Amino acid sequence: MKIAVVAPSCSLNPKVAAAVQEIADKRGDCELVIHPQCFLKDGHFAGPDSARLAALREVLSDESVGAVWCARGGYGSNRVAPELSADLPPAARGKIVMGFSDAGFLLGGLYNAGVEVAWGPMLSDIVRTGGEAAIHRALDWIVRRDPASLETGIQEPAMAFNLTVLSAMLGTPLEPDFTGIDLLIEDVAEQLYRIDRAMFHVSSSENVRRVARIRLGRVAGIVPNDPEFAIDEVAIFEEWCARSGIPYGGRADIGHDVDNKVVPFPVRRS
Amino acid sequence: MKIAVVAPSCSLNPKVAAAVQEIADKRGDCELVIHPQCFLKDGHFAGPDSARLAALREVLSDESVGAVWCARGGYGSNRVAPELSADLPPAARGKIVMGFSDAGFLLGGLYNAGVEVAWGPMLSDIVRTGGEAAIHRALDWIVRRDPASLETGIQEPAMAFNLTVLSAMLGTPLEPDFTGIDLLIEDVAEQLYRIDRAMFHVSSSENVRRVARIRLGRVAGIVPNDPEFAIDEVAIFEEWCARSGIPYGGRADIGHDVDNKVVPFPVRRS
Repeated sequence: MKIAVVAPSCSLNPKVAAAVQEIADKRGDCELVIHPQCFLKDGHFAGPDSARLAALREVLSDESVGAVWCARGGYGSNRVAPELSADLPPAARGKIVMGFSDAGFLLGGLYNAGVEVAWGPMLSDIVRTGGEAAIHRALDWIVRRDPASLETGIQEPAMAFNLTVLSAMLGTPLEPDFTGIDLLIEDVAEQLYRIDRAMFHVSSSENVRRVARIRLGRVAGIVPNDPEFAIDEVAIFEEWCARSGIPYGGRADIGHDVDNKVVPFPVRRS
Repeated sequence: MKIAVVAPSCSLNPKVAAAVQEIADKRGDCELVIHPQCFLKDGHFAGPDSARLAALREVLSDESVGAVWCARGGYGSNRVAPELSADLPPAARGKIVMGFSDAGFLLGGLYNAGVEVAWGPMLSDIVRTGGEAAIHRALDWIVRRDPASLETGIQEPAMAFNLTVLSAMLGTPLEPDFTGIDLLIEDVAEQLYRIDRAMFHVSSSENVRRVARIRLGRVAGIVPNDPEFAIDEVAIFEEWCARSGIPYGGRADIGHDVDNKVVPFPVRRS
């Protein structure tokens, strides 16, 4: 399977690209084609919006490409995802697109447009200790839908999002219909008061209130609060779920770490 | 005029309270009554939600109170504003409520419930260099609706919000109807990528797209981005306004500083 790598948010370190290329080459079950757009730099972004959009369109239009894999997160896929999803190349609907964190904006938009998408590790995860396992987990799902890559607690249909990304997606064209969805949420590098505020926002949404349940992934690298916030992320999720009548389904095995599992979204017939 | 001070978010330093009490006493045109709830501490908050809600209800129910002034921001008024606004004491509708920053959640909920609210300085502004001017500006508006306190560019009807608060308010019961509103937006202590993400979110809202125009207050204490974000807050606002068809009305004289002006919201007949 030919897997195209693009960077819808921030640019990819060439050493990271080389390390993952080597892993893919050794596997022998896929051809990893890292688009040169991944190495562009335009301030915060992997090239201007026009270049990121063009690279996404190019690989999604390519009949020889079986999957599109996001190089990394950061910030910026929301700047191109609405335009991409509103005018999608027909060939996109035969592919799977994988990413997480900021790439959730892209997953949301493509899901709404009827593309098969999955939350899962990205190339940048190779830099974590033991990161090779995350790369194989992603490729095992992309290439052969290996059930061992999956988050074990998911009840189909499921979706996964970063909390801060989910909060910023509500009310935009990227917001999926959450009716009956098992919604897995994680976050990274935020203060607990921000987690609390985002959960107030997310759990107030009438759309989110139609989920089957919310499950809490890992909240990594919490930035200290002064004064101490007093309750932890579990209590925050339990409280806002209780207040809004959303079933809280306990912990989920996703997060900004090497153990981050794959969560395939259902395919929406658009 | 009797002015009741409560703390819907974080607790007030007693020295700050004393300094502002002294200013008010010297003016002779108002009686400042600082509710003991302001000094409660419960982790991040000025007492538990129940205490903050009870203090707000108490002063809003008190026929002898002419105005309710928020002690300070921080985070937390969203945890009590929906319940307060859903079951408002009838006496609340004869008062004015002033605050800004996190208190914007409260302003939104009370506005929706038909209370007269205004964006304006809070007690905590006394600690800024020259902060006494901000305190007088707030009291001049509260006590005698002094036009000198007003943001000079506002076209009625106007509203003002912190960008991050506004973003977290969309889709909640605290979100006002923005149709025809001159919407002033400021922010503080965020990275530019967060400002950009929040403006993507806010400008995607169909409700926000019905504003008369958006005007940009000061964005203070921008946290450095690595890499540099490449465009500044003015370019961010101009771009998202252009993308979403919202007229951009230039700069506004509000922000987390001593020059922060008063922006009275229209009174909604609910």
